[in-house]
Amino acid sequence: MVNSTGSSSQTLIDKVEINVDCGEAFGSWEGGPDEALMPLIDAANVACGGHAGDPVIMRRTVALAKRYGVKVGAHPGFPDKAGFGRRVLVMSAEQAYAEMLYQVGSLKVFLDEAGVPLNHIKPHGMWYIMMQDNEELNDASMRAISHFKVPVYGMPNTLHESGAKKYGIPFIPEAFVDVNYDNKGVLLGVPGSRKMTTDDIYQAAASLAKKGLVPAVDYSLVDVGVKGQPFTICLHSDFKTCKENIAAARKAVDEVNNELYNSP
Amino acid sequence: MVNSTGSSSQTLIDKVEINVDCGEAFGSWEGGPDEALMPLIDAANVACGGHAGDPVIMRRTVALAKRYGVKVGAHPGFPDKAGFGRRVLVMSAEQAYAEMLYQVGSLKVFLDEAGVPLNHIKPHGMWYIMMQDNEELNDASMRAISHFKVPVYGMPNTLHESGAKKYGIPFIPEAFVDVNYDNKGVLLGVPGSRKMTTDDIYQAAASLAKKGLVPAVDYSLVDVGVKGQPFTICLHSDFKTCKENIAAARKAVDEVNNELYNSP
Amino acid sequence: MVNSTGSSSQTLIDKVEINVDCGEAFGSWEGGPDEALMPLIDAANVACGGHAGDPVIMRRTVALAKRYGVKVGAHPGFPDKAGFGRRVLVMSAEQAYAEMLYQVGSLKVFLDEAGVPLNHIKPHGMWYIMMQDNEELNDASMRAISHFKVPVYGMPNTLHESGAKKYGIPFIPEAFVDVNYDNKGVLLGVPGSRKMTTDDIYQAAASLAKKGLVPAVDYSLVDVGVKGQPFTICLHSDFKTCKENIAAARKAVDEVNNELYNSP
Amino acid sequence: MVNSTGSSSQTLIDKVEINVDCGEAFGSWEGGPDEALMPLIDAANVACGGHAGDPVIMRRTVALAKRYGVKVGAHPGFPDKAGFGRRVLVMSAEQAYAEMLYQVGSLKVFLDEAGVPLNHIKPHGMWYIMMQDNEELNDASMRAISHFKVPVYGMPNTLHESGAKKYGIPFIPEAFVDVNYDNKGVLLGVPGSRKMTTDDIYQAAASLAKKGLVPAVDYSLVDVGVKGQPFTICLHSDFKTCKENIAAARKAVDEVNNELYNSP
Repeated sequence: MVNSTGSSSQTLIDKVEINVDCGEAFGSWEGGPDEALMPLIDAANVACGGHAGDPVIMRRTVALAKRYGVKVGAHPGFPDKAGFGRRVLVMSAEQAYAEMLYQVGSLKVFLDEAGVPLNHIKPHGMWYIMMQDNEELNDASMRAISHFKVPVYGMPNTLHESGAKKYGIPFIPEAFVDVNYDNKGVLLGVPGSRKMTTDDIYQAAASLAKKGLVPAVDYSLVDVGVKGQPFTICLHSDFKTCKENIAAARKAVDEVNNELYNSP
Repeated sequence: MVNSTGSSSQTLIDKVEINVDCGEAFGSWEGGPDEALMPLIDAANVACGGHAGDPVIMRRTVALAKRYGVKVGAHPGFPDKAGFGRRVLVMSAEQAYAEMLYQVGSLKVFLDEAGVPLNHIKPHGMWYIMMQDNEELNDASMRAISHFKVPVYGMPNTLHESGAKKYGIPFIPEAFVDVNYDNKGVLLGVPGSRKMTTDDIYQAAASLAKKGLVPAVDYSLVDVGVKGQPFTICLHSDFKTCKENIAAARKAVDEVNNELYNSP
Repeated sequence: MVNSTGSSSQTLIDKVEINVDCGEAFGSWEGGPDEALMPLIDAANVACGGHAGDPVIMRRTVALAKRYGVKVGAHPGFPDKAGFGRRVLVMSAEQAYAEMLYQVGSLKVFLDEAGVPLNHIKPHGMWYIMMQDNEELNDASMRAISHFKVPVYGMPNTLHESGAKKYGIPFIPEAFVDVNYDNKGVLLGVPGSRKMTTDDIYQAAASLAKKGLVPAVDYSLVDVGVKGQPFTICLHSDFKTCKENIAAARKAVDEVNNELYNSP
Repeated sequence: MVNSTGSSSQTLIDKVEINVDCGEAFGSWEGGPDEALMPLIDAANVACGGHAGDPVIMRRTVALAKRYGVKVGAHPGFPDKAGFGRRVLVMSAEQAYAEMLYQVGSLKVFLDEAGVPLNHIKPHGMWYIMMQDNEELNDASMRAISHFKVPVYGMPNTLHESGAKKYGIPFIPEAFVDVNYDNKGVLLGVPGSRKMTTDDIYQAAASLAKKGLVPAVDYSLVDVGVKGQPFTICLHSDFKTCKENIAAARKAVDEVNNELYNSP
């Protein structure tokens, strides 16, 4: 059980992990290939009915993760299914706070039913992006997150990290390997990134896990704030090649964990 | 704390109570006059974002009820805001089960935050009506309700009562005084009912609370299944005269509780 | 131009056609493989934002159909994206009438913009099914449909046909070949149907188009009301094998049209 | 009939008018007191199901305006009922364009049914506000608006006016009298404004209509760009005192129209 004091000496995770977004279907519409990805990942970020998901899908996704022994985090998104939570939507602080409680709380009921603990919280899409530098939104969201006494995943050296600290929330740093950073360590979206082959992804994950450095879009090696500690790598589940991408990262992560963290 | 075995010797409530639907606003749109009604009621059925309500409204309504010392129940409704949960919507058993968990679970997070216990569950509108005789829907809903270990409010002598018993859910019988029953004890909607004055409501509540009988639409006295036990009276919060109606019922209930149940 | 008197001597279509549902994506979620199907079909039923579709998708789907010279019909569905318009939702007559106007009207603006005429209207899923025998719903829907002066697709010998006649709407009979009828000509859903191979579909389409008879689920030949006249065959675009299925029906239809209707 | 060339010599309206937002109910939730306001206004901006309204309400509101001889404009809003179209929602240009066509098109079907012409288009809330200085959004919206060949209402000397001109859309300048401008002519919201009495509103409307000047929040007289021409005054229909406010403005406008424009 994670304790919520967030003391820096605490080991939140003891090796490099892989997380992906799951449960991003809606009604009859399909999301990513969750079942195919489960054997390859450590933690699933499960959509909570905001940007994607609905009660049936949330419940099925929790059951699927449980069957594969994958840890389950909440993946709250802006309440905008038409925009998949990827559009700017300016909620008031009160709205952001209540929405975060609502979405995580609604996932929690399915976790309770299944006897699965809530592992972490990771805001989705534009909510995650805006929290990096919008203090009001970050504060309202972190105050709500602190209610659940679990770690938050986020970008090191942004308000994600300082906001978590401010509200006593354990922080697990996250890095990306299927899209690129620029040479200053700023994450780029899909349009700004190089096309990443599975070999590129393997190399990026290995370099990150071993040295905390990743090849930027211009191939320079950048420090993205995860050096010298276990962290979690996020890969997209909505890329056509997601299964191959994640398998490549899995191979690199397993090799490094075996070497550095004595993990089987 | 209510125990969940539902044994018949158990006293779930020890006097006649009044419940009304609250938190039925949405975004900028107003619901009933919740604050004016709070001093007059024992229990509030709080909308859970299905037929009405949203995270901000749910949270504010919980805070309001807490301030007035009113008990809070969950009031899940069909996920159809455009129809206010009053239209037939045929969910599969899996959908009904997951939707019930989802809505009650999402209210529970605001109760937890406020340190207020969940008092009961009462389905709304067409969900409540259909559960009276649709076995598949009633079963799926009751299985989900049983997860929360609190009583359900419902119509005596319908699947509400037998379904609660089947799933070990404490059952609190409910009766209505601002709309009518027919002379066989079948509840009528607003269009089929007489116009009820506050005096009519006072008389109906007094008669129900003392003798378990209520004047039907044709003025015959009918037994609606609450005789000889404490029960809860539901009044509408969306009638123009709701405040006066509820005050009239409150007066009758207070008098009878004082006489029969030694309640101050 | 179709005239709206619906006289029986009028030829609404002059050969057997194939229609499929298109534009059934929503936001980031994908629908069927519309572009792959366009070369194989005569008419597309385009979702109108009720059960599926949104303004961007409606506009893109109209443009796609225009590019392939495919006729465009409106495919209004119950306003229930979570249920994909396949759940019973009981609207009042006023709601059904206004909803039909709203959805067809909103597609029409994209047709006007693209300079494409509205070819027909075909209600979707449960709306279509319920209109077969629910007089109030059928009446309200047909009154709204009559506003647009285009034919409606429907099941022969049901309220679809008599309702169209009552409101002066040209009626184009429809039959199905990738699911089955029972031996009395009642259409069965996917669960009640045999698994239809492409060869089964070819045979069914050929038999229907030539003789108006189709092999029922028990292989008996049934008359489904399209004998002796051009009609339209509907195939599902959400089956995994939809492209192959539609290609098989296309082959049969082309052969019969060539033989019977002298169509190239 | 307005012609769409937008030449500056053209008289779009020949006296000062009053417009208010109408049809802002949703399902069972009430909007403003539309029927009480109709006798007091020249033009109703009818919600199109984006920020408020639904098919039944749109149809009823058109019928109501027709009954009172009030001109009907479309009042498209961000597709965000939970936020009443008053929150920033960043749509892509393609989304904004298609959304505008969709919403206005869906109102148009009810106008066509009622035999009422579309009088104008006026975006709602945050859509209106953002179009004042967001070029991409303004361009996409104006391109869609130009499709309907009717005037747009907007703020003079902003992208509203220049965008309308660019796309050949007749522009009718708008001013506000129940909230304030600052002393540079920038419109303030409710929180930044003085409490406006009906006498304040009468004076503001009279001054605007006669001299094109209005008392700012600091009581200095500011030119808000409507001097020397007929224009339209917008008042809120969601203020508690809206009926009295609009009656006060009506009195001022009638007096000035009688004096300046020889209008009865």
